[in-house]
Order: sequence, then structure tokens, then C-alpha cells
Amino acid sequence: MDKNSWRERLYIIVFFSDTPAGRQFDIALLLTILASLVVVMLDSVQSYDHYGELFYALEWGFTMLFAAEYLLRIAIHPRPSRYIFSFYGAVDLLAVLPAVLALLFPEAQYLLIIRVMRMLRVFRVLKLLPYLSQANFLLVALRGSRQKIIVFLFSVTTLVIVFGTLMYVIEGPEHGFTSIPASIYWAVVTMTTVGYGDITPKTPLGQAMATLVMITGYSVIAVPTGIFTAELASAMQPERLHQTCPTCEKGVHEPDAAYCSRCGNALFPRRLESVPEASEEELHG
Amino acid sequence: MDKNSWRERLYIIVFFSDTPAGRQFDIALLLTILASLVVVMLDSVQSYDHYGELFYALEWGFTMLFAAEYLLRIAIHPRPSRYIFSFYGAVDLLAVLPAVLALLFPEAQYLLIIRVMRMLRVFRVLKLLPYLSQANFLLVALRGSRQKIIVFLFSVTTLVIVFGTLMYVIEGPEHGFTSIPASIYWAVVTMTTVGYGDITPKTPLGQAMATLVMITGYSVIAVPTGIFTAELASAMQPERLHQTCPTCEKGVHEPDAAYCSRCGNALFPRRLESVPEASEEELHG
Amino acid sequence: MDKNSWRERLYIIVFFSDTPAGRQFDIALLLTILASLVVVMLDSVQSYDHYGELFYALEWGFTMLFAAEYLLRIAIHPRPSRYIFSFYGAVDLLAVLPAVLALLFPEAQYLLIIRVMRMLRVFRVLKLLPYLSQANFLLVALRGSRQKIIVFLFSVTTLVIVFGTLMYVIEGPEHGFTSIPASIYWAVVTMTTVGYGDITPKTPLGQAMATLVMITGYSVIAVPTGIFTAELASAMQPERLHQTCPTCEKGVHEPDAAYCSRCGNALFPRRLESVPEASEEELHG
Amino acid sequence: MDKNSWRERLYIIVFFSDTPAGRQFDIALLLTILASLVVVMLDSVQSYDHYGELFYALEWGFTMLFAAEYLLRIAIHPRPSRYIFSFYGAVDLLAVLPAVLALLFPEAQYLLIIRVMRMLRVFRVLKLLPYLSQANFLLVALRGSRQKIIVFLFSVTTLVIVFGTLMYVIEGPEHGFTSIPASIYWAVVTMTTVGYGDITPKTPLGQAMATLVMITGYSVIAVPTGIFTAELASAMQPERLHQTCPTCEKGVHEPDAAYCSRCGNALFPRRLESVPEASEEELHG
Repeated sequence: MDKNSWRERLYIIVFFSDTPAGRQFDIALLLTILASLVVVMLDSVQSYDHYGELFYALEWGFTMLFAAEYLLRIAIHPRPSRYIFSFYGAVDLLAVLPAVLALLFPEAQYLLIIRVMRMLRVFRVLKLLPYLSQANFLLVALRGSRQKIIVFLFSVTTLVIVFGTLMYVIEGPEHGFTSIPASIYWAVVTMTTVGYGDITPKTPLGQAMATLVMITGYSVIAVPTGIFTAELASAMQPERLHQTCPTCEKGVHEPDAAYCSRCGNALFPRRLESVPEASEEELHG
Repeated sequence: MDKNSWRERLYIIVFFSDTPAGRQFDIALLLTILASLVVVMLDSVQSYDHYGELFYALEWGFTMLFAAEYLLRIAIHPRPSRYIFSFYGAVDLLAVLPAVLALLFPEAQYLLIIRVMRMLRVFRVLKLLPYLSQANFLLVALRGSRQKIIVFLFSVTTLVIVFGTLMYVIEGPEHGFTSIPASIYWAVVTMTTVGYGDITPKTPLGQAMATLVMITGYSVIAVPTGIFTAELASAMQPERLHQTCPTCEKGVHEPDAAYCSRCGNALFPRRLESVPEASEEELHG
Repeated sequence: MDKNSWRERLYIIVFFSDTPAGRQFDIALLLTILASLVVVMLDSVQSYDHYGELFYALEWGFTMLFAAEYLLRIAIHPRPSRYIFSFYGAVDLLAVLPAVLALLFPEAQYLLIIRVMRMLRVFRVLKLLPYLSQANFLLVALRGSRQKIIVFLFSVTTLVIVFGTLMYVIEGPEHGFTSIPASIYWAVVTMTTVGYGDITPKTPLGQAMATLVMITGYSVIAVPTGIFTAELASAMQPERLHQTCPTCEKGVHEPDAAYCSRCGNALFPRRLESVPEASEEELHG
Repeated sequence: MDKNSWRERLYIIVFFSDTPAGRQFDIALLLTILASLVVVMLDSVQSYDHYGELFYALEWGFTMLFAAEYLLRIAIHPRPSRYIFSFYGAVDLLAVLPAVLALLFPEAQYLLIIRVMRMLRVFRVLKLLPYLSQANFLLVALRGSRQKIIVFLFSVTTLVIVFGTLMYVIEGPEHGFTSIPASIYWAVVTMTTVGYGDITPKTPLGQAMATLVMITGYSVIAVPTGIFTAELASAMQPERLHQTCPTCEKGVHEPDAAYCSRCGNALFPRRLESVPEASEEELHG
């Protein structure tokens, strides 16, 4: 029992951020993650090549540390499988894996940068959990506009393939449009208004065609913005979406309406239960 | 009559996707289209030039296949002319034509990429027909904002011509602005914020002018977005647009209103018949 | 009197588009303008230099024609001063002036492109006058957001000057940031997301700074779009803006409200007089 | 007392813009600031190097002038500490400091450009104070969307780090992606659709990856626009946000409602006190 209570105390420190000790643990963890990210980045800068071995050692040190932490979390969680298959469990594992992979493919070591996802815990430390419900907010809007966005992406893909091929036929390999896939890459670069300039039309006909592609891209940019804004404006009035008249089942009412505007029966004012929040488990995993 | 029922069975398999056989036919068709697209794309990549003859043979194979399918569709459709002049009929024909054209102009063979439009059938196979009504949704919003967008495009065209000519006068051919059409191309590249950088102003006056063009383009991008968002927000409340009071002819009501808010007479609640859907024929063509 | 009626008939043909003769006159005029624009553009293309004299003659021909038309319009208008100081009068004069200027500065001849503004008459010929009221619509929304946009432009100008100077100090002339004005030009190119790439940061500190500028520009693009959309959504409900209760002077009501929601007195339903239309004179000038 | 009244008169001239003398002082001040900005800018242009000493003298002259003005403002303000720690007090000090700094680091002299912030006083001179309340308007909308924007920026930062590292692994230093920080810089340049083209993918895999980054950036641009528009639309109906029913505490009403729509009790119509305006002190500081 003594050992059990010790394990429980550790569980609260490691998985929660409410106690002073838990808070300190989380802050130390975040600083360690940040340090490990900086090391991975510096390791890639060529002018620091002479520190290569130091960086290598540090990276392995951090990996060992995070691996130990991952095992500790499994050991002290009351229901380990729940942690392992939670969002944070997956992220914690991903933060270690690339180091193992790097034994086979040295390049994979840079994938340690995936540790940046562990930084999500910063919201918990800074008592910014409400911020995460904001993310839910955005997700609701995105989910609501999912169908429209799929149709939109399908249309854009078709446009990009057709425009790319036309430019390949018009300009040809001698002007940088070396193949249809490269021309499609050009079409994406142009329609998204990125415009690197590594491939550009040279012939007057090609430039006229490019003008058409740009104007299309310019008009098309209005579409996802419009879709998302309209959905978000809906999602920001959650009461309206959830208040259903118990008598006639009319589902949409004026905000704060006390009586149903169709049948006149009283609506029992319900609390704002707007957006499906991440479960406790997920947040504390 | 035996032959007729056989023809009818084939019609259901080829034109519809509800039966297992029809579903399998559509999936096989989509995979074939995809394969033919990949072949056209790979054929254009220069490093695969030594497979040229193979690709050529494959392309002709696919073209023969699609031509046969097109004829079959005409043969088994109860009212062939209806299919031929439907949207899908035109697309199916377009998927074959460029190969014929390529006998005269070899380049035209790449236009086979137009087959990508046949991929629209993917929505039917994946039981995503509701997604197409989403496209209708977008089309309604686009149609509603058509007039505003024409006025907008006219203004942009005028701006682009005037700005382009001014830059031609300011910078001149020696700085890359070789002619007025080329300068107009530069103005479009700049106002749409694509910014290739293949033509850039060199003189201080030209750079000041370019700054003005960019700020204009930046402000102007707000216009189509604003237009479209406002229209889409309207289109997303279709009931409001269609429910007309039979007594006083008031045309706009609260969503789900049961009584007219002006004269108090009952509105006969109508079903959501919001957007003009593509006819059955068109969808199954 | 005979002469007067002849002058009147000519006035109706030249200034209006309702009679068959007036329509034909306007169509001929538009085609002539279009032809003159094409000539100015082609004249600037170097590969057509050997047609130089032909183009020169044609341009003078068109200029003579338009000058004659301008004088004719003054001669037959019942109140010439009204035409001269109208919008179209100014445009018609501007379409001739650059040719005179070109006698002193040969380059000015390209400014003949300003004739593109005469194309506005195309709306009248195509019976698209409603489209112009759409333009009024956009203008109302722009006027409503004018104050917000001035504040916005002032902030952006300040940002651009500060960012540009910082980059000049960080990168310096040796990396292409040759002077503070050039660096401000770079800042505008970057914040508007045009991104030519003719000037780019080379040092790590400069790249970090550029990242900040881009993120700022990216966030800031939301502001004019948001302002304009909100204004346009307002402008699209014109009834709400104009219906004032005659009893309590409450100015904003639900669309189609029959009774004032504050004092309960009847609102006299007024016709849609939404946007200040261009006066008849201006449209027919 | 004589001296005191003289000090008071000066206070009104220097700090306020309502009297003719105060107005003239402010206009003279603005023109001086503008002149000093132009001098700093011209000083950085290399082709004016031979005026170097003149510019240097002028800059010191302006600095002396502004330092004297700063001391004068402290001397005549009734409560000097209040001015010193006000917004304008800080700006006025900042307009002098870089010249002192430039004695140590010559480059710092260009930071005198910070004087552009003193131009804010232009709003006071042009009687455009209402414009500043417009800025408050924008700030309210920005503050309202702050949480959503932090979550958004966190997601974008994560995306940019992950995408940048992937491109570094795929393309490598030999194609311009020299280090992870440089690749992150590329990812920002791409996702914000700036697209300089100083670093571009060369391999087919890298181009496919870049396509993904661009499409993501293109979709993501909808998010801040949507957030901001929705907030601004809210902020533009300030009455609705402030009018609370004294009986049932229902907080949101129709604009201009006279009676609570839930409980029917009269709302005491309150004046528009919408946005927290800058205090008098700050504006006149």
C-alpha cells in the first residue's frame, strides 16, 4: 500500500499540473523538449559542424531521457493501455522512435523534430486549457465545412491538372516546363499565388494562359475563405444550434429566446454545451 | 425481348452504381482512367524516354477501350441522343478526341489529360452524391455574386491595363518591360500577389509605382472574398429565400417560421427545395 | 427649327443607346476604341517595329476621329458645359490629350491607353446598366469602410517603414538592401505576399526578421477582408438602413418589418431606394 | 503668477490643437518630423553620398530640436511624470535616443526612422480623432479573437517546423536547403504565399511535398480571415454586447430593442459606450 500511494503521488506529479510539484515537473519537461529541439536544429547548420559529436551525444542523451520518461509514464499510469493509445501517448512514443530509425538511416535523426508536438503541453502549464477549447471551436467549423472543402479541393485538383498540361503543350520543355508533373507543380505554385519564379512562361501565348491561371487562382481564393467564415459564424452561435423546442422540435431559435417562435411553448433554457470537448483522459494523458 | 432485357441489364450496370455489378464496373472504369492519366503524365517525363513506345502503345490501348465504351453506352442507352448531349456524354467523347487530333498534331496527345473530368464519377461510386449537391451550393453562391464579380473583373482589367502601360513608359524595354502586353502580364502577376520576379522594376520611380500596384492588389483581394462570403451566407439559409407568404407575399422570413411576421397568416411549411439539383439523367448519364 | 430637330436627332443617336441608330453608333464607337487600344499595344511590341509608321498613322487617325467626335458631342449637346464637366466628358477629352502631349514627349503616346476608360460605355450597349448599380453597391461598402481602411493603411505604412529600416540596418547594401527606400520597397513586396525575390535576406538574423514580416503580413491580410465583408453584408440589407419609424425615429428594423419593434406604430413600407445611383446626366453624358 | 499663466498658455499651445496657435505649432511639428524622416531616408541612398556631411548636420539639428522640444514638454506639463510615462512621452523620447546610440554604433542612426510614430499626431491636427476610435474598433475585434489567433499561430508554427525539417531531409543542402532553420524560413516563405524563389525544391519528391505545403497554406489563409471577420461583425454591433436586462439579466438584445424579448420588462436605453477609448491624457499627452 505504501508503494501504491508513492506511485499515485508520482502519477499526479507526472500527469497533472495542478500541484506545485506537478507544475515544476511540466516546466522542466517543456524546457528539456525545447533544448532538444534547439540541438536538432543547430546540428543541421553546417557552420557548427565541428560541434557535431557534442550534438550527437546530446541528442542521444535527450532520447534516453524521453524514453525513460515514456516507460515511467506507462509504469505509473493506473490503466497503462489507456495512456499508450491516447493522443499524448502516441506523441511521446513518436518523440523517441526516429532515434532508433536513425541507426539505419542517419537522415532520420532530424525527424526528432517531431518532438515539437510534445510542446502542446505548454497549454496545460500556462493554465491555457480554455485555449484548447478554442481549437475545438476551429475544428467544429472545419468539420462543418469538410464536404464543401472536399468538393473545392477536387475542383482545384482538376483545374491544376488541366492548366498544367495546357502549359506543357504551349511552352514545352525548352522553357522550363520539363514534364506534365513539373507543369502541374507550376500550376499549383501559380494558383496559390506563391509564385517562386523558378518556372515562368516565356511565350506570349503562355503568358496569356498564365494570366488566366492567376485570375482564376485569385477568384478561387475567395471560396475557402467564404466557406470557413460562414461556418465559423454559425459555430460561434452554439446555443442556436442546440436549443430544441421540447414540444414541436423546432431546432433553431433566436439566441436567448425563452419561448419557441413557432408553437409558443416554453423552451427550458439549457446551459451552453456547445462544442464536444476533448475528454479528461486525453487532456491529462 | 430476350435481347432487350440483356440490353437493359447492361444499361443498369454501365450507367448506375447501385447494383454490385454496376459498382464493380464503375470501380474498374475509374482505375482504368487513373492508369491512363498516369501513363500520359509519365510519357511527358524526359527521363522515361526509353519507354516511349510502350507508353504510346498503352495510350492507344486506353483510347480504343474508351472509344469502345463510348459506343457501348450509346448502343445500350434507351434514348441515345439524351446521353450524347448530356454533360457526361460530352466528357466521354472529349476523353477520346485528342487521340484522333494527335494524328495531325503530335502535341495534342497530351490533351488526353482531359480524361481527368471523367473522374467526376468517383462521387457516384463512393456514394458521395450529397457532395455534388454541395457543389450546387457553391454554384448558387457564385451565380448570385456573378454580376458583382463581372463589375469587379472589369475594374481589375482596366486597372491592369493602365498600370501596365504606365510601367512600360516608366521602366521601358531596357528593364525587362519589353512591350505593353508584357507589362500587363507583369501587372497581373503583381496584383494577384503571385510575384514571379521574372520582370521587376529597377528604377526608384518604377519601384514606387509597383508599391502602389501591390497595395491596390492587396486591398482589392478583399472585394471578391467579401462578395462571395456575403452571398454564401445567404445561400446557406435557403429556406429564407424561398418561403413566400401566400397572403401578403412577404418573401423573407425567419428560418423555420410557421406564421408570417408581417400579416400573421400561416405559412404552409414547405420542404427544403433549396438548390436546383442536377437532373437524374445528368447524374446517371 | 429644321436644323434644331436635326441636332436633336443627332443628340439622341450619339448620347443614348435606346434607338437602333443610337445602338449602332455606340457599337461602332466601342469597336473603334478597341481597335485603337490594340494598335497602341502592338506599337509597343518590338518585333512589329517595321510596322512602326503604319501604327503611327493609325494612331493619329484614331486621335483625329475621337477629337472630331468630342467636338461633335459638344456641338450637339443641349447644355455643352454640362457634358464637358461630366465624368464621360472628362474621359472623352483624356482619350485625345496624350496624342498632343506626345508631340513634346514621344513616350506619352502610350498613355493613349487611357482610352480603355471609354469602354465603360459597353455597359450601356449591352443593356447592363443594372451592373453599374452593382458597382454603386461596392462603392457604398467601400465608402462605409473608408475610415477603418485609412487607419489600417496608416498602420501598414508605419510598419513598412519601420520593418524596412530594420532590414537595412541588419542586412545592409552588400545583400541587396541598397537604401532605406529600397528596403521599404522590399517590405511592401513581402507584406503584400507578392515576393518577387529580387531582394532577399541572406543572414540568419535577416531571415528571422523576414519571417516576422511575413507572419505579420499574413495576419494583416485578414483585416481589410474582414472590414469589407462586414460592411458589404450591411450594404446588402439596404432596407434595414433606410426604414425609419415615423413615430419614434428608430432607424434600424428587421427586414420587412411592418410595425416598429420599439414603439409598435406602423412603419409605412417604403420602396427600396437603397444606393445613390449615378444621375441620368452622368450615365448618358 | 505671470510666469505661471505664460507656462499655461504654452502648455495649451504645445499639447493641444484647438487654438489657432496650437494648430500652427502642431503643423510645424509634423512638417519638421516629415523633413527629418526624408533626411534619414536620403542619407541611406548611396548616390547621394556626397551630401553625407550635410545630412549628418541636418540629422543632428533635428535631434537637438526634438530633444529641446521634449525637455520643453516636460517643463510646461502640469504633471510632468504623467507625460513622461504616457504613450506620446515614450514616443517623443524614442525619437531622440537613437542619435545618442549612434555615437557608439553608427548604424543605429537609421533607427531615427522611429520618428514616424510621432506622425500619429497627424490625426489630431486633421481633426480626425474619430479615426482613432476606429482603431479602437479594430483593436476590440483583435482582442476578441486573440485566443483563437494564439491557437492558430501555435498550429502554424508546428506545421512550419515539421514541414521545414521534412524538406531538409528530402532536398538536403545541395539543393539550397542548407539547414533546418533555413528550411523553416523556406516553409514560412511558402505557406504565407510570399514565394521569393531564393530556395526552391528541385527533386520530384520535394516538389510534391512543396505542393502539399502550398495547398495547406492556401487553405489555412482562410482561418485568420474567418476568425477576424466573425469577431469584427460582432464588434460592429456594440449595443447588443452591452445592453443587459435589469430584470432577468438577459445580456443580448436586438439592436435598439426597448423591451427585453425574454421577460418583457423595459430596458433602460443606454448610450453607446461601446469601446474603451484612449483617455484624454493619452490623446493630448
